[in-house]
Amino acid sequence: MAAMKYCGECGKSVSQKIPQGDNLPRFVCDSCQVIHYHNPKIVAGCIAEWKGRILLCRRAIEPKSGLWTYPAGFMEIGEGTEEAARRETLEEAGAQVTIVRLHSVLSLPHIGQVYLTFIGHLDAEVFEAGVESLDVRLFERQDIPWGDIAFPVVKDALHRYVDDVVDGTFRLHVADLSHRLI
Amino acid sequence: MAAMKYCGECGKSVSQKIPQGDNLPRFVCDSCQVIHYHNPKIVAGCIAEWKGRILLCRRAIEPKSGLWTYPAGFMEIGEGTEEAARRETLEEAGAQVTIVRLHSVLSLPHIGQVYLTFIGHLDAEVFEAGVESLDVRLFERQDIPWGDIAFPVVKDALHRYVDDVVDGTFRLHVADLSHRLI
Repeated sequence: MAAMKYCGECGKSVSQKIPQGDNLPRFVCDSCQVIHYHNPKIVAGCIAEWKGRILLCRRAIEPKSGLWTYPAGFMEIGEGTEEAARRETLEEAGAQVTIVRLHSVLSLPHIGQVYLTFIGHLDAEVFEAGVESLDVRLFERQDIPWGDIAFPVVKDALHRYVDDVVDGTFRLHVADLSHRLI
Repeated sequence: MAAMKYCGECGKSVSQKIPQGDNLPRFVCDSCQVIHYHNPKIVAGCIAEWKGRILLCRRAIEPKSGLWTYPAGFMEIGEGTEEAARRETLEEAGAQVTIVRLHSVLSLPHIGQVYLTFIGHLDAEVFEAGVESLDVRLFERQDIPWGDIAFPVVKDALHRYVDDVVDGTFRLHVADLSHRLI
């Protein structure tokens, strides 16, 4: 659970305790008694295809600066899941995509994240590194830089994607990666 | 965006401003400069089947006390999406389910929620109202209380489910419900 010391409502101290009728510890204000819930965040991403190749970005920011990923980032309040994946692709890779389908729902319970990764088609062979990217390139499947992928969950999703393309199958992957990735 | 007045880190006041390198207003501490992000929450739910019928709960708590829903609730940090759907079904309906597949990913941008609804099979014809439910029953499709469903997103998911069962199709529904539900 993310650390919290003071109440966002009144500024007084909070304590971790299990509220009445609940079964998990929450941060509860010692003064105004407001309960502060922390819940998992959605990371929306897109594996964008163009003539058999996929678009990867080399990260310009920490964590994992210098390593590769498909465009992905925290979903914002006010947008839908596909919209978030399109926005991240535009921001990080300067590319417009049309979402084709949902590829995977991969939970990372130990860090409270859920990766929703979509498959998209580039609308044109147009892309450029956004401010959070050092480089953006189209990769043939056999050229994916497996040793330089930024996050285990991204590597896992890419492996599932490549395996499906090789097999000619197109299924949705729902999995919990807590055990394999720590 | 959820309101916030004081910094959870240092207890001093916060202001809404767009941090450098960002493009959305965030709550930023006037003193320690920490940025507080608010992101959409995942509601995990389960349409649990038993011999052609589905399990619905009558809510005992606000909002929408007295109205019907399939088991669903906020996903917790530390669990996966399917695990969250199973837990909600156990807590609200006293029922053990085996998850069959993901049914829908329905975004509610205006309130910062994403409903992940799974299809499950009851492990046995055993269920009972949990502390958050007044009643739990198995409904034939034609008996679903459409006029007394708690939330529009739940009604939308149930309609999609029933239509698919009638058609004999089993597809994943990804949609943004912002326009239809306000």
